[in-house]
Amino acid sequence: MLTGTATRSRPLAISDVTIADAFWSPRREIIHTSTLPQQERQLRSPGQQFDALRLAWRPGDPHEPHIFWESDIAKWIEAASYVLAGEHDPQLEASVDEAIELLAGAQEEDGYLNTYFTVVRPGERFTDLQDAHELYCAGHLIEAGVAHYEATGKIALLNVVRRYADLIDREFGPGGSAEGGYDGHQEVELALVKLYNATNEDRYLRLAERLIDNRGTQPFYFEAERVRRGTPGYFDFLFEDRARRADWYRQYNQSHLPVREQTEVVGHSVRAMYMYSAMADLASHNDDAALRSACERLWNDLVDSKLYITGGIGALHSIEGFGPAYHLPDADAYAETCAAIGLVFWAQRMALLTGEAKYVDVLERALYNGVLSGSSEDGTCYFYGNPLASDGDVQRSEWFGVACCPPNFARLLASLEHYVYAVDDRGLTVNLYVAGAATFEHNGQDLTLTQQTRYPWGGRIDMNVETSADTEATIRLRIPQWATNWTAAVNGSQVVRETQRGYAVLDRTWSSGDTITLELSMEPTRVWADARVAAARGKVAIQRGPIVHCIEETDNAAPVSALALSREAQLRVMHDHARGLDSITAGGTLESRMTDVLYTSREPETSAIDVRTTPYFSWANRERGSMTVWMRESAT
Amino acid sequence: MLTGTATRSRPLAISDVTIADAFWSPRREIIHTSTLPQQERQLRSPGQQFDALRLAWRPGDPHEPHIFWESDIAKWIEAASYVLAGEHDPQLEASVDEAIELLAGAQEEDGYLNTYFTVVRPGERFTDLQDAHELYCAGHLIEAGVAHYEATGKIALLNVVRRYADLIDREFGPGGSAEGGYDGHQEVELALVKLYNATNEDRYLRLAERLIDNRGTQPFYFEAERVRRGTPGYFDFLFEDRARRADWYRQYNQSHLPVREQTEVVGHSVRAMYMYSAMADLASHNDDAALRSACERLWNDLVDSKLYITGGIGALHSIEGFGPAYHLPDADAYAETCAAIGLVFWAQRMALLTGEAKYVDVLERALYNGVLSGSSEDGTCYFYGNPLASDGDVQRSEWFGVACCPPNFARLLASLEHYVYAVDDRGLTVNLYVAGAATFEHNGQDLTLTQQTRYPWGGRIDMNVETSADTEATIRLRIPQWATNWTAAVNGSQVVRETQRGYAVLDRTWSSGDTITLELSMEPTRVWADARVAAARGKVAIQRGPIVHCIEETDNAAPVSALALSREAQLRVMHDHARGLDSITAGGTLESRMTDVLYTSREPETSAIDVRTTPYFSWANRERGSMTVWMRESAT
Repeated sequence: MLTGTATRSRPLAISDVTIADAFWSPRREIIHTSTLPQQERQLRSPGQQFDALRLAWRPGDPHEPHIFWESDIAKWIEAASYVLAGEHDPQLEASVDEAIELLAGAQEEDGYLNTYFTVVRPGERFTDLQDAHELYCAGHLIEAGVAHYEATGKIALLNVVRRYADLIDREFGPGGSAEGGYDGHQEVELALVKLYNATNEDRYLRLAERLIDNRGTQPFYFEAERVRRGTPGYFDFLFEDRARRADWYRQYNQSHLPVREQTEVVGHSVRAMYMYSAMADLASHNDDAALRSACERLWNDLVDSKLYITGGIGALHSIEGFGPAYHLPDADAYAETCAAIGLVFWAQRMALLTGEAKYVDVLERALYNGVLSGSSEDGTCYFYGNPLASDGDVQRSEWFGVACCPPNFARLLASLEHYVYAVDDRGLTVNLYVAGAATFEHNGQDLTLTQQTRYPWGGRIDMNVETSADTEATIRLRIPQWATNWTAAVNGSQVVRETQRGYAVLDRTWSSGDTITLELSMEPTRVWADARVAAARGKVAIQRGPIVHCIEETDNAAPVSALALSREAQLRVMHDHARGLDSITAGGTLESRMTDVLYTSREPETSAIDVRTTPYFSWANRERGSMTVWMRESAT
Repeated sequence: MLTGTATRSRPLAISDVTIADAFWSPRREIIHTSTLPQQERQLRSPGQQFDALRLAWRPGDPHEPHIFWESDIAKWIEAASYVLAGEHDPQLEASVDEAIELLAGAQEEDGYLNTYFTVVRPGERFTDLQDAHELYCAGHLIEAGVAHYEATGKIALLNVVRRYADLIDREFGPGGSAEGGYDGHQEVELALVKLYNATNEDRYLRLAERLIDNRGTQPFYFEAERVRRGTPGYFDFLFEDRARRADWYRQYNQSHLPVREQTEVVGHSVRAMYMYSAMADLASHNDDAALRSACERLWNDLVDSKLYITGGIGALHSIEGFGPAYHLPDADAYAETCAAIGLVFWAQRMALLTGEAKYVDVLERALYNGVLSGSSEDGTCYFYGNPLASDGDVQRSEWFGVACCPPNFARLLASLEHYVYAVDDRGLTVNLYVAGAATFEHNGQDLTLTQQTRYPWGGRIDMNVETSADTEATIRLRIPQWATNWTAAVNGSQVVRETQRGYAVLDRTWSSGDTITLELSMEPTRVWADARVAAARGKVAIQRGPIVHCIEETDNAAPVSALALSREAQLRVMHDHARGLDSITAGGTLESRMTDVLYTSREPETSAIDVRTTPYFSWANRERGSMTVWMRESAT
């Protein structure tokens, strides 16, 4: 986002932020050195994404291009672009440029760009919006084009996607072949807002608006296009009960009601997150109070009853989406990695829209837990779903037939700069505590704020301000809801004791060398769920700072179901140097094994034991075994 | 079983037992008045089982005959026959006779009888033994023929099935088309033993022996027949990984090893039970010590690690069968009704073979819990699987595409007479406590023993002996393992204080008017599972006498996961007159609902509450709601 109205809060550009953080930098380095190369190998496998763009496939050939493939390559380009913004890597740069050339070569004369429809179903473009993911792929291409431009200054891909966006604008505009239509899997709307931010071309914002406003109006577009088309939808084979359950399938892609009338978070969770993100963007750009209210209502519905303690969302495997309120099973949780990433996107936009830190609290919960669990420590294996308990048979995979999560994870971590700070005309907001620096212009002065911290393993953040000249500015420091105590001092003196909308607000004239010391209390705490969450009944979780913990069999030499945490036991933090993380130990009980008989009226024998946790994000990286976030409690 | 070696323990014939019991008689009356007519309507629906026997189906017609259909109609005839043994019902009798005429009409010249192969795949008989269920259907027809003969004295169906058995004997004998073969779904083996018992034709016993002995020998028959046939098996579409997992699919139908070498209960649970039943029969008939040892090893494996507290077996939905040891999930339990019924069959035979009451303890556990739960109170809806916990979305169904369970349930309850008593040359064994009477001949005298009891709601059984003349005989009374105290008195005097193989043995000269009073202590007790059963960790069940209890939401006005039973609370028995059963009430705690926030570090509020149980067999007969057998425990 290179431009933006001055009064609107916006993230800093990647180039204005540096990250040099003991927690995040190694993980981002792995994205560069392991994740992106491994994903590139997948994309370049014979007959896969790169090859498909050569348009050589003919009916009967193996490796029919897949409807999602442009989105895979686009997210990989996007992630690589963010990396290239900060790292010199000529090989990666050349590989990205080759991909962009292939995309440019696959683009049709009129700007259309979708291999599947070009070679597999020519003449059928924009006739199966409900299922065929065309606009979804277009959205990811647009995001990639903007990111590549922002990160490298090159305009090749931006030009490709602008031509495609212009075509979409014509086809979905008055008199176009898809007038009144919108995408089955939302994504292009938030991409078009990014394209508007990058180009200042108002028509992209208006197109995003139109796609959002058309959605859910009657007659329902997807049902009308189906009648017009007269053939089955791409996913009819999966959704055999479509005809009987029309409203359910409208909810599945959030097209059951006009978006301003929607009050409950329903359906496929990634679609929902991407759509709500665009709604928040448009509410901000257009000062659209109705759209903002809809976003706030939907947010409350999510966090009040449909959010996992890990920041995961979307409990149901069947629809990759939301179940009813409080339906948050643990071992059966879906909680797709992409959905938690989508929640980060939406939460950021809500925070920018409202200036409320509570949205960043949820962003942080998702980022450090339900997102980060999506990848193995070595950055080469992924969870699609992120259950909160396992019998021991759950493991990450190297790749998926529908490989949305791996590159989504890569692009989020590679663009972490976007989430740490926000700026507006009053100054700087520090949303996340990540060691490094931010540079921004304020009242004609260049200011730099540096952070030094052990976060999330320690709650102290030392900040330093440099400025070209003394200047008045507001620096807002987010005080997480989990921090029951905190102090904020400037040059050693405590200056603020209360929060405003979740922030400690430091409003003063800053001089070079000023220091800010923030101390957030980081006691490990027990957390309980609303009693309507059946999977958590009689159970407790442990959280310290933003980190939700779990127990793994490998740390406890016992199946986790045999362990119970004593209600009164002290929670002790232990640093594990080898693994580079903190775990928590506390007294508990172990149900010992019986002998000979399966059922007995003898009371079970329990023995005292120390129960040891590990951060949820770190699970399933060692020996296989059972795991649970929600632990049984014992009185003694 | 009309005949049998004098020294071998055997059940009494249906005609020698009457049941007039407050618990069982109404349930058996429902089988007669509701279950059988409802099943008959299903079987007589246009194009269904009855119609198929007219052999009018032609390729392209609707309602292609199904490979299981003879077994459905056979089990219905069998159940109806048992009812007709005790009840005058000309309409039912005429309906059964019509079914038998249709079966006789459908029988081919050479004795073959299977509609599916006759009209759908002529010329392919006995070529897909692994999948096509031909011998399974044959077995049920044979059981029906024997039952119909035993109950009514009519020989029409017995003659039909003898001709079919003779054909099978030829085809599976030396030089036959299926020499060395055996059935994919065991059943015919135990049926052939029954046919031998009814006819004294040794060849039927020898055929059963051969089918049992061939099983699991190498080269594996099913793999050889597949190569010979050269076409896919009937269920290849279900079992796509067959080629890769040969041993798994051998275990699926217990053909992985010769039966005498099998040590672990594996695979499809109904197939296993029917096979083990035949093995026990043959071990008894042939005094086959190796077969008996195999049965005892398999039994121990089952009861030590694979038996639900309800007597349900077969945890896995995927194979309708056994998982690894201690894999006994509750909400995800399969525990098919037919498998619990099959366990009753096997347990009875083990008790007859060994004279040990411990087998009847398991029989009783299955009968009063995991079998009885299979039907609704009104006898018209059925569970295929019998989970031990539910969120509230589990309900019984009226019928199934593969409708094995409903008529299996009917035939077991309608033949309960077979399970109450056993006789041998020493006298009578009372295995189950069911009000009514048994008449048997001993040393040339006719003896009658009557029972009066409120069992299972009370532990007192009053028995009375009538005899044509004073006679010496042994009467053995089963002392259930759950009865921690018991007394047995004859004519008011306590005569025995110890058990022999689980029985109180009353060995004396009996005169008419002698009374026996058995008192079994029936305190409700807490039961815990071996700690390796993950679903039961930190949880407790309640059992009283043979009845396993559960808690249902409808009795407690709260989701069952919100309830915990206090470890020290007294368990109080309450009789529910309206429902005709006992429930148990005990102090516990309710986790109350919180407000506003999904996750909190405030300790959950609990309030004292009385938790109320209901017998497991009775669940899911009232308002929908959650249910669990394993209850959380609280210290207070």
